[in-house]
Amino acid sequence: MNHTQIMQKVFEFAREGEGFTAPNPMVGTIIIKDDSIIGKGAHRKYGEKHAEINAIENAVESVAGSTLYTNLEPCCHSTPGKNTPPCTNRIIQEKISRVVISTIDPNPHVNGNGIRTLREAGIEVITDVLTEEAVRLNEVYFKFVQSNQPFVHLKIAQSIDGRIATHNYDSQWITDESARTQVYKMRHKYSAVLIGLNTLKKDNPRLTVRLAQGKQPYRIILDERLESELTSNVFRDAHTDKTIVFTTPDYDQNKREKLTHRGISINIVQSNGNGLVNLDEVLSQAARSGISSILVEGGGMVFTQFIAHKLFDKISVYISPIIIGAGIESIGELNISSVSEALNLENVDFENVNHQIVVTGYRDISATFGKMAGYL
Amino acid sequence: MNHTQIMQKVFEFAREGEGFTAPNPMVGTIIIKDDSIIGKGAHRKYGEKHAEINAIENAVESVAGSTLYTNLEPCCHSTPGKNTPPCTNRIIQEKISRVVISTIDPNPHVNGNGIRTLREAGIEVITDVLTEEAVRLNEVYFKFVQSNQPFVHLKIAQSIDGRIATHNYDSQWITDESARTQVYKMRHKYSAVLIGLNTLKKDNPRLTVRLAQGKQPYRIILDERLESELTSNVFRDAHTDKTIVFTTPDYDQNKREKLTHRGISINIVQSNGNGLVNLDEVLSQAARSGISSILVEGGGMVFTQFIAHKLFDKISVYISPIIIGAGIESIGELNISSVSEALNLENVDFENVNHQIVVTGYRDISATFGKMAGYL
Repeated sequence: MNHTQIMQKVFEFAREGEGFTAPNPMVGTIIIKDDSIIGKGAHRKYGEKHAEINAIENAVESVAGSTLYTNLEPCCHSTPGKNTPPCTNRIIQEKISRVVISTIDPNPHVNGNGIRTLREAGIEVITDVLTEEAVRLNEVYFKFVQSNQPFVHLKIAQSIDGRIATHNYDSQWITDESARTQVYKMRHKYSAVLIGLNTLKKDNPRLTVRLAQGKQPYRIILDERLESELTSNVFRDAHTDKTIVFTTPDYDQNKREKLTHRGISINIVQSNGNGLVNLDEVLSQAARSGISSILVEGGGMVFTQFIAHKLFDKISVYISPIIIGAGIESIGELNISSVSEALNLENVDFENVNHQIVVTGYRDISATFGKMAGYL
Repeated sequence: MNHTQIMQKVFEFAREGEGFTAPNPMVGTIIIKDDSIIGKGAHRKYGEKHAEINAIENAVESVAGSTLYTNLEPCCHSTPGKNTPPCTNRIIQEKISRVVISTIDPNPHVNGNGIRTLREAGIEVITDVLTEEAVRLNEVYFKFVQSNQPFVHLKIAQSIDGRIATHNYDSQWITDESARTQVYKMRHKYSAVLIGLNTLKKDNPRLTVRLAQGKQPYRIILDERLESELTSNVFRDAHTDKTIVFTTPDYDQNKREKLTHRGISINIVQSNGNGLVNLDEVLSQAARSGISSILVEGGGMVFTQFIAHKLFDKISVYISPIIIGAGIESIGELNISSVSEALNLENVDFENVNHQIVVTGYRDISATFGKMAGYL
């Protein structure tokens, strides 16, 4: 096996931690000696051991003289709040001869220092193996660690003509079961799922993952005056500790008490000019709570606000081959007067999901990926 | 070569007549004797010889005892207005032993009689070879010959969020050059291209084919009161004889005289309840002029009318990965109140054209293809 083939297997191990490592990245490690895999490991959960350490400790023979493959630059720092000792120390101590990595870790505490530390200890370091895949694998981490703002992914399900519901707010079901199943799986990968008041009222979604091994993400509700019904699923199911409401100073005091009593967090942020919650503040507060990624699921007004304020990173539009005609539009007023001002998605990808097509793209690769953007 | 492989080559020959045979179908013929191709031909242009006759006359040796492959049942009729004698007579007279075809010809004058005539003359007839491809090849013909109404294809170019222009009617360019080039080629295949008054006013399109060997289709303009500018491209270029205007009894008499003077046809049809031209009448009049297919290119109001009145056969939506937000919508009010009432496109296909995705589907396979629908 060559570097590329081994690194592909590293990504498979890394994905074993999907949904559980945030705000840490997904990392996998494989240790090779005399052309055989002698150890492998993943970072499985936030707070637990790093992939490099797991691979070393799982190795079936001495790792001295071996080559260690890992998708991200090994950490080299001990800062307050960090749960684990530097991986570089352990790699040096175990007399590993060579380390092959995909990308640096842009975390300011690492950012090339891990590689330098290994090289100064006489270890050969090979970099830039399958970098594009490695950046995509950890897109959430790369955004969060460089900006300290959550990675925001808008997920829209619409008809060909851009409607997310009929005039009567009927939206069941624009997309089919295969598309909805994909969305349940997607939720598991995110720290939080976010919807607005209208979607809560009209659809009363549960926003659960519905996977055997899934993790329930936080459920963020934007509700400017606390007008949500107390009977809403997200306020009375088994996961109320995972429900967070963002409201404005105009909130209903009585409703707040009742929600708080059920274990639901109420966060008050300023409203912006049009009376809606200030999304900049929502994202900053979410980041401070350790929420590194948010899947935004509607409705049209919420999508429009995130787009108008340039506060999203990625968008996936599930387009069903049906025509609804006038109804509830997926995206509203953006004050764009000529096509040249339109938002051109970057790194666009098309995927078939049964009879639907999913268009996925990024708002601004440089803004989202920072110094990692060059790899894409 | 087996039947399927030979029939694929037959389709290639048939396509040599693309754009020129209407309202006749595209037909190709290959004659095989002793495992060699001894003759081949196509129906190249309306009024000229049929493919079978061309292949027989081009044959490099006697066709007696040979097998003739053709995508459509050979004709067997002599009716007033038909330009050519029955192909079945010639096939029998030439002592061809076997005929292999894809589909029957649903033209009421043929409709299985061609096959019966051949069999009664002792010729072996094999049918149903690559029928689906054969039906798709001649979709326009199969619609027109069974319904005597044109095949109507809506072509929409829009942003992901379903906008065909900004508020200011700017639409240049939502799709890129590769998509626009594909549309020029598409126009060549249709008898006519159709737009409404708004599109004429805002875009002033030429509606030309821009291909070295292309055929200029008719250009149909829907203009309820003859409000179009006389300076519009379609009223003053080299193809004014190919411009047809449909208006209502409210037309401007003075404008009518000026347009007629330039060789432009003005057709008066009733208006429907909302003051727009009655599309049923437009299609019937077009059919009477021998227009067997129409590519509808906009704008939103025209698309909406064709959809609302169930008067289209096929739709192709070119979706560009850009976001415009509120603006001119591709499809307007259809009075659909629940998703279950939405129009579900049939036989949907997705195609990538550079950075765009094209969603193509049919409104109602049975309505369009009649007795040929079972092959799809």
